[in-house]
Amino acid sequence: MLPDAYAADCPSRQILNRIGDTWSVLVVVMLADGTHRYTELARRIQGVSPKMLTQTLRGLERDGLITRTVHPVVPPRVDYALTSLGQSLYGLVEGLEKWAEAHIDDVQAARTAYDAAQA
Amino acid sequence: MLPDAYAADCPSRQILNRIGDTWSVLVVVMLADGTHRYTELARRIQGVSPKMLTQTLRGLERDGLITRTVHPVVPPRVDYALTSLGQSLYGLVEGLEKWAEAHIDDVQAARTAYDAAQA
Repeated sequence: MLPDAYAADCPSRQILNRIGDTWSVLVVVMLADGTHRYTELARRIQGVSPKMLTQTLRGLERDGLITRTVHPVVPPRVDYALTSLGQSLYGLVEGLEKWAEAHIDDVQAARTAYDAAQA
Repeated sequence: MLPDAYAADCPSRQILNRIGDTWSVLVVVMLADGTHRYTELARRIQGVSPKMLTQTLRGLERDGLITRTVHPVVPPRVDYALTSLGQSLYGLVEGLEKWAEAHIDDVQAARTAYDAAQA
């Protein structure tokens, strides 16, 4: 069977869910500039709950996009870094983030027009 | 304030949620080859509920990424097409879809290794 994200049971569908996810995008883009600790990710990615961040990191690790390294120090230090697979995704998800940041005005103007037309 | 998707209250965060969403990606990629009817989208995008597809299309329309045209025929025909803003997003989201389809084996191998290490 050829990969096809339009097919509900194709594994690419699940992968697309993972890589397009906002928290995943922000983690991958942040790790592109080097290794970061859990606490650094939690501080920079505003609004993510500890539970959601942990779940996102675990999913990215399981899918082979990031590595998790626990340093046996007191208190324990946990570092995250992109794998080469994660690096291959970086350009794409950075593009998404930049598109979102670049088109705020366009999207907001469209929303205003849409909402006015509904009223 | 400079746009920053890492800030919880930056509008780019919401936009990133929209554009990375799996259903949005599949709709935008499908509309890149031309106008499609609601029924065509529903058939091709397997596993999406009518409610979720309608919500996705409405969100994309409100954000200025697609147009919705109702033809006054019996039964009514509703066509969707990309706007120029939606076209500017196409290359990016197509890249995500292709990445997901191209890396199924890598991701599945990583999952197997991860799960084995947890056992």
